[in-house]
Amino acid sequence: MSLDAVLSKIDEDLEQATDRLFELLRIPSISTDPAFKGDCDRAADWLVKDLESLGFSAAKRATPGHPMVVGHSGQNGPHVLFYGHYDVQPVDPLNLWHRDPFDPAVEETPAGKVIRGRGSSDDKGQLMTFVEACRAWKAVHGTLPGRISIFFEGEEESGSPSLIPFLKDNAEELKADIALICDTGLFDRDTPAITTMLRGLLGEEIVITGPDKDLHSGMYGGAAINPVRVLARIIAGLHDDTGRITVPGFYDGVAETPDEIRAQWEALGFDADGFLADVGLSKPAGEEGRSVLEMIWARPTCEVNGIAGGYAGDGFKTVLPSEARAKISFRLVGTQDPLNIRENFRAYVRSMLPPDCTVEFHDHGAGPASVMATDDPAFETARQALSDEWPREAAFIGSGGSIPVAGYFKEILGMDSMLIGFGLDNDLIHSPNEKYDLRSFHKGIRSWARILHALNS
Amino acid sequence: MSLDAVLSKIDEDLEQATDRLFELLRIPSISTDPAFKGDCDRAADWLVKDLESLGFSAAKRATPGHPMVVGHSGQNGPHVLFYGHYDVQPVDPLNLWHRDPFDPAVEETPAGKVIRGRGSSDDKGQLMTFVEACRAWKAVHGTLPGRISIFFEGEEESGSPSLIPFLKDNAEELKADIALICDTGLFDRDTPAITTMLRGLLGEEIVITGPDKDLHSGMYGGAAINPVRVLARIIAGLHDDTGRITVPGFYDGVAETPDEIRAQWEALGFDADGFLADVGLSKPAGEEGRSVLEMIWARPTCEVNGIAGGYAGDGFKTVLPSEARAKISFRLVGTQDPLNIRENFRAYVRSMLPPDCTVEFHDHGAGPASVMATDDPAFETARQALSDEWPREAAFIGSGGSIPVAGYFKEILGMDSMLIGFGLDNDLIHSPNEKYDLRSFHKGIRSWARILHALNS
Repeated sequence: MSLDAVLSKIDEDLEQATDRLFELLRIPSISTDPAFKGDCDRAADWLVKDLESLGFSAAKRATPGHPMVVGHSGQNGPHVLFYGHYDVQPVDPLNLWHRDPFDPAVEETPAGKVIRGRGSSDDKGQLMTFVEACRAWKAVHGTLPGRISIFFEGEEESGSPSLIPFLKDNAEELKADIALICDTGLFDRDTPAITTMLRGLLGEEIVITGPDKDLHSGMYGGAAINPVRVLARIIAGLHDDTGRITVPGFYDGVAETPDEIRAQWEALGFDADGFLADVGLSKPAGEEGRSVLEMIWARPTCEVNGIAGGYAGDGFKTVLPSEARAKISFRLVGTQDPLNIRENFRAYVRSMLPPDCTVEFHDHGAGPASVMATDDPAFETARQALSDEWPREAAFIGSGGSIPVAGYFKEILGMDSMLIGFGLDNDLIHSPNEKYDLRSFHKGIRSWARILHALNS
Repeated sequence: MSLDAVLSKIDEDLEQATDRLFELLRIPSISTDPAFKGDCDRAADWLVKDLESLGFSAAKRATPGHPMVVGHSGQNGPHVLFYGHYDVQPVDPLNLWHRDPFDPAVEETPAGKVIRGRGSSDDKGQLMTFVEACRAWKAVHGTLPGRISIFFEGEEESGSPSLIPFLKDNAEELKADIALICDTGLFDRDTPAITTMLRGLLGEEIVITGPDKDLHSGMYGGAAINPVRVLARIIAGLHDDTGRITVPGFYDGVAETPDEIRAQWEALGFDADGFLADVGLSKPAGEEGRSVLEMIWARPTCEVNGIAGGYAGDGFKTVLPSEARAKISFRLVGTQDPLNIRENFRAYVRSMLPPDCTVEFHDHGAGPASVMATDDPAFETARQALSDEWPREAAFIGSGGSIPVAGYFKEILGMDSMLIGFGLDNDLIHSPNEKYDLRSFHKGIRSWARILHALNS
């Protein structure tokens, strides 16, 4: 099977591929807004039709929310399940867009050509890189390589309410040797990446109550317990002076980053100063003695995401509040057990309560970290294929955030995921003027052709 | 001069006095709402007319806001300046009132008759106790006792914006031997009180900024400084484990309560357990080894009145916020210097800032404590007169809150104030269904007759 012919076909066909992407981008499939329900449906229909034109047996599959799209092709060879999502974020505030978000175009910019439009990067442009690689392959070889299943979701931007039941109900059908998820980015413009470590997330909300009503701080101040002060002590006690988290047992399951991974990361030449400077900072604020990449990819955290109590509007009210609340999240790594940590965190909070104070806990989700089994040879195969396409060697990297679908694939389907994507940090996903570099689209298609070729060689 | 005849006249005239108060209560003089500007004016006119009917030379005096009412009577004898305010709080939420707030009535309750209506206790009912005492005196004696000046304000419930300039512009006219302020309460149902210690107030708002924009806590958590955590450490560090405030020099000017005052307070039989139980608490939360009355009357405090940062609404956002803010107030006693404390507080906050964090301070006012010179014999004279009227001995007490006008009288007019009032804690001032016990009104009028008699004997 000639890879070169497929790559040439991709190069020749780029303009047509872009036009096809524009058709999909013109459908305003905003999943969170019921006004666009029909458009989500239309986007699913468009994809089914396109997959069928490539020889997939594809169908729109109903859920209580927006439909899934599932397609299958081939019987033999390694079986991959490709995942992307066809729904997009809302476009507000519309006045900050310099063009209609659903009227896409290729624009010239100082950094090269970009495809402008909602969904261009997140995730329609990304998922079409894989579809276009299949199309070129089919055009050259008359058939698709190996055994490919496709799984497109239409609720990723609205919390994926149907995802877990759908995976459970269709586990046999969807399980493959490995999943390919195209919803992440390049490490940088020239360096492709396979994300193999995703931090987990534990979300907790605590509500401390002292007096049973708001009091006047003149009348009661000094005698009545102030729940904001109690909350402040609880938060202040969560980290020690070296930046380590004090919850008992918190570091159980946190391993040191292996030397070879650490060496790969060092070779990336990550610009930690620039990363911090982009957000107005100059000093890493995490655990002493750790690099910034370790802090965000390989170390657990505890952050306050929100706090409120008393009167915080304009002016001043001398209130001694009855209640204070905080939303606190933990990013988890390795084999940290979120339920165990929740229990120990809650015990810590209770231990910090003075007399007359009570606490209420609200659960905002608990998911462990995902660490892919990179000793599966598919990972190294894909890494080589990516390295052949891009100026620099591909790396296995971590991600500070969570991509829940990878966890569900592991948990429900027992399948690891290779997270490979071509987005850039400046793609403005979720924001006005979202774009996807034409180069990301083009080289993304070529990357998947190389990966499919390598996996089937 | 016969006091008994005056007291009898007061008793006979109670129904008419109540009717006169109702006339004033029917005027909805809500000072904070521009829609009621004309009503504030009408209330001032009503008072001018009533004072003139008693022989005062009285006038409405324009300010940039609502007018003041000033009246004078007499040339000789001790000169008192009586202060009250004719404006009232808004009445929202109206649906919680069981009658029209501006259609007052005497209602029977299990605890006795009450005058129900907005302003009945705060402060129209209270100021009319003095006016009615003057009326009865005039009826019996044909003239008013000694030398009386009257000063009614119409902006007390909306921050008194015109008060300081008016006092400065009319200092010579308003200065008297002593001020009588009727805007406080009884110690309890049977125990009258002269408030002689008012805590001062320093209000500060701090805004801590870390990153220059809100960040994703997955992407940046662990590497970027979180301003909520910084703020929590600052607040947690403001008190030590014994409840003392740690700001350097904070206790300069805080004297121990004199033994004789402490003895008076002990004799009051204050129900500290009940005071706390009323708001759902059981343990005093202030400095170790202090009584609850000391904590709220004689000791300084530091409270957080409001805090905000990140996302605190429904659900959860994994934001690492750029900014966190808190409103913090200090109640001051003795000769604590608010400006000095502000400076030391700000230096403490700055000393707690990690790299990359900045702080902005907003000034929300600074006023020292007021401690009256109770060795002026007028205080003991008034205390005896009050003790003659009520079941229990009158006491010199403190107040946790601030009554700014007393501080301005001292500062601008060089005059001490006797704060004498007849409200009860359950009067629901500022709330729906405000009331004033008919007994407070009746015995309040009698109390002023006794005090005027005693001061002029």
